[in-house]
Amino acid sequence: MPSHKPHKLKLIPLGGLGEVGKNMMILEYSGDIIVIDAGLMFPSEEMPGIDVLIPSIDVLLERRHRIKGIFITHGHEDHIGALPYILSQLDVPVYATKFARELILTKLKRRGRGIKPRIYQVRAGNKVSLGHFRIEFFPVCHSIPDAMGLVISTPVGTIVHSGDFKLDHSPVIGEPTDLGRLAQLGAKGVLALLSDSTYAELSGYTPAEKEVSETLDRIMAEARGRVIITTFASLVSRVQQVLNVSARHKRRVFITGRGMIDMIDTATKAGYLKVPENVFCQAEDLSQLPHDRIVLLATGSQGEPTSALVRIANREHKQIRIVPGDTVVMSATPIPGNEALVNRTVDSLFRQGARVIYGKLAQVHVHGHGSREELKLLIRLVKPRFFVPIHGEYRHLWLHADLARSMGMPAENVFVIEDGDILEFGPNFARVAGKISAGTTYVSGLLRGDLKSPVLKERNLLARDGAVVVNAVVNKRSGELLSEIDIRTRGFVDAPQQGELLEQAKKEILIALRQDKKSPVERRILEEKVQGMLSRFFYTHTHRHPMVLVLIMVV
Amino acid sequence: MPSHKPHKLKLIPLGGLGEVGKNMMILEYSGDIIVIDAGLMFPSEEMPGIDVLIPSIDVLLERRHRIKGIFITHGHEDHIGALPYILSQLDVPVYATKFARELILTKLKRRGRGIKPRIYQVRAGNKVSLGHFRIEFFPVCHSIPDAMGLVISTPVGTIVHSGDFKLDHSPVIGEPTDLGRLAQLGAKGVLALLSDSTYAELSGYTPAEKEVSETLDRIMAEARGRVIITTFASLVSRVQQVLNVSARHKRRVFITGRGMIDMIDTATKAGYLKVPENVFCQAEDLSQLPHDRIVLLATGSQGEPTSALVRIANREHKQIRIVPGDTVVMSATPIPGNEALVNRTVDSLFRQGARVIYGKLAQVHVHGHGSREELKLLIRLVKPRFFVPIHGEYRHLWLHADLARSMGMPAENVFVIEDGDILEFGPNFARVAGKISAGTTYVSGLLRGDLKSPVLKERNLLARDGAVVVNAVVNKRSGELLSEIDIRTRGFVDAPQQGELLEQAKKEILIALRQDKKSPVERRILEEKVQGMLSRFFYTHTHRHPMVLVLIMVV
Repeated sequence: MPSHKPHKLKLIPLGGLGEVGKNMMILEYSGDIIVIDAGLMFPSEEMPGIDVLIPSIDVLLERRHRIKGIFITHGHEDHIGALPYILSQLDVPVYATKFARELILTKLKRRGRGIKPRIYQVRAGNKVSLGHFRIEFFPVCHSIPDAMGLVISTPVGTIVHSGDFKLDHSPVIGEPTDLGRLAQLGAKGVLALLSDSTYAELSGYTPAEKEVSETLDRIMAEARGRVIITTFASLVSRVQQVLNVSARHKRRVFITGRGMIDMIDTATKAGYLKVPENVFCQAEDLSQLPHDRIVLLATGSQGEPTSALVRIANREHKQIRIVPGDTVVMSATPIPGNEALVNRTVDSLFRQGARVIYGKLAQVHVHGHGSREELKLLIRLVKPRFFVPIHGEYRHLWLHADLARSMGMPAENVFVIEDGDILEFGPNFARVAGKISAGTTYVSGLLRGDLKSPVLKERNLLARDGAVVVNAVVNKRSGELLSEIDIRTRGFVDAPQQGELLEQAKKEILIALRQDKKSPVERRILEEKVQGMLSRFFYTHTHRHPMVLVLIMVV
Repeated sequence: MPSHKPHKLKLIPLGGLGEVGKNMMILEYSGDIIVIDAGLMFPSEEMPGIDVLIPSIDVLLERRHRIKGIFITHGHEDHIGALPYILSQLDVPVYATKFARELILTKLKRRGRGIKPRIYQVRAGNKVSLGHFRIEFFPVCHSIPDAMGLVISTPVGTIVHSGDFKLDHSPVIGEPTDLGRLAQLGAKGVLALLSDSTYAELSGYTPAEKEVSETLDRIMAEARGRVIITTFASLVSRVQQVLNVSARHKRRVFITGRGMIDMIDTATKAGYLKVPENVFCQAEDLSQLPHDRIVLLATGSQGEPTSALVRIANREHKQIRIVPGDTVVMSATPIPGNEALVNRTVDSLFRQGARVIYGKLAQVHVHGHGSREELKLLIRLVKPRFFVPIHGEYRHLWLHADLARSMGMPAENVFVIEDGDILEFGPNFARVAGKISAGTTYVSGLLRGDLKSPVLKERNLLARDGAVVVNAVVNKRSGELLSEIDIRTRGFVDAPQQGELLEQAKKEILIALRQDKKSPVERRILEEKVQGMLSRFFYTHTHRHPMVLVLIMVV
């Protein structure tokens, strides 16, 4: 009998910034590839001047003819935001639910010139067969409408991908996470569960979205003036609650901020948002209505500098000024990294005379990911043979893996993998079988580059100590100085200390040039010598290391 | 009868970075000035290359002969860290408790060359009379030994300054906050209470420091391997608990990290730390002792890059490598701004195989400031006529003021002031009577400057988009180009995209120079023209705004 080596299923998370598999993941079996999600990441503070980060897709470009499709779990930026960049290089079909599809199309209209996208709309229960894969979408609750998990049937077994999820049994919009379907799958046998680890640190259950209504209710009842609410525009269920509670309190709602206006428009047209009759009002109504009849719904929950709420806080908003009696509700948590911006906004609003209510003071927000008891329930229902925590930084994955082990899963069946790791599955085994380079591409204006390229290192050096540029002209043959020595600094030293320091530096350069007068003049050698000397000189006098650029023109 | 205008008491918080009055405050009456605290602040992420920030003391230098003394409430950096910079310009006596004094002296040894400090040691109950002021120290609980509040008797009334405080009725080290003395003062009449607002957001009571012992006890009992603990070195009561619990579990403690070694040395010599017999061990013991007999106490609770814990996490520590079975305890919270560094450290430790226990997972830390019920109790005991929240960002002050009003204080007797505001007191009134400029000085190596100077703005511009330097030599009379055009970039564009972009830029420069060939050549005009053209050119091609520096040498 000829030996026949069966194919293996390969799972590779990509993305590169630590939130494993959140932005992109690939599944490969015998020449067929499917991609799950195509998201972007926002830069951290060590990445000045970077607009966004996207997964490097060299690995996809090399295999472009084998990619069957991109499957989108939901419409958040960290799951769809890379599509304009990717689809411009890779013409593959995209499968997404209605709301995600709308958001993708809007995004492509703005940034996808020349792309002719094929975006197929799917809904809960739909099954898509592509090559060796059959992909079924099942509804999960998350902080955006129409979020999905995936059931992926493959020749070696079934993979369940949770998407981003929580178990809200009374969601404000859409269906609860389909526990019945998951139990059914569990009974039939699941090879591996890939599950959202974002809140693996939090014990208990994440509160239901509806609980926010109670807080909003109380706030609107107590506020004698206007109530100004900000939240994530894509958190449509929160917007729905704001509209409902406002209507109940006979307050009319004015929307401010482009993102919020657009999202409400999209969500209403697509049928997710049910707008109570006559709840919206226009700018001209604001001066007519008594303040206790007004709600303002604004962008700016992350303290974004050009958002409506920040413009209000800074007295730069065209229509709205804070007056005493205003209550501001921050119905969102700051995304890590945004805390300082959000705090500054809150401080400014208080300073203007508002009362501000935020997460530390009242339950004005609940988050969109499951806590530990929900994570356990999912594992218990799906009963996977192998468990792979995804969507989290390493500590979240570790804690989620530990949770699975604490429920009795054998340690060797639990895999904490990182971006680029190749996790290989057969019908009866799983193992880490190598690693590919899973890099990150930065987007900086029209520029693109590898996150590890020198540009970012240089930016950080420039940021830390500034730059000194030295310029002089020297005679090619005699080495004689033909010009003044021109020294300019940027971001290095303040005017009061600068004069004497630069005068002294010039003297040192003169000495260095004189010592080196020989013919013919070797430009690079001279430049390097002056540069080394100046770096030492500046360090001695300032204990700083400015970037020193010496340009000696030889004529 | 001649009209006699009585003197007023003036209170002015200084410091400038939003944590009002935390770092420095002055009190002035009829030509006498006392200063309370002299702390530094750490830079935020928008301040690259800045080591520390200190209050600008022009206002003190102008009044140097009227300053009677500097009163230190406790030895944290944000209350003493500016002393080396200030005492080098201002020879005034400093009054501090024993532990704070020790820390100040250590600090001055390192950074105070040439200073002959006069630092007088005081203790709880001591009273210092200087000019019109009499200052009494009273003990408060905080996260460092020997913390004090101040009772300041003035001709217009008594001011109570809480210092940084919590109400721990069973402190691990030192005395509980002296509620009796405060009640006594309250009965006699207090003009104004200045009170710590740091945790005005938190309801209830801050847990007692001793509660951490219970968690540590459980962790040490359960850990089958080594327990590695990090905390703030100055949190001596935590160190004490680690030593006690270790001794109870027959574990020996190895100290790693300079700051921790020094602090334990200081605290032991000064009598604050009681070291159980034979609890410490040396590096050479580590390989001999079974792992469940070892505790490592390390610096690095804030993820500081050169700290012991971070070196351990990065496999760079000389004596210690993480092995499976190790448990790491982060017995501290990240100071705002340090979250990313701390998370990275935790992730690395998990990756190395350790189990890491941090604040989100167990009560391994309690903080050092009072929560809302404690703040209320202080107000109730002291019964001040006027209330001034201090030590907090604006929202904390606002919430603390709101708390005071909610207890029945008349709104007009509650003052939310900011750095630079002059709060004026008479025996029967208080009012904001103007504002002085309360700036912040940055320290960057040996350089000093105003935080609002151009240097920081330039650093941020450089960081965002990098720099382009252009150099050429032109004949003075003919305008003819005598050299090649030299273009260099730093932090702007990566190699693959750079070549063509710079070639094209050179062509544009050539055209610009040719158009402008006239005699005599006006260097500045030519440079400005080329710079403007290049800025537009680069923006068109990259959508970025690099700093363009054009140097045209005219010979």
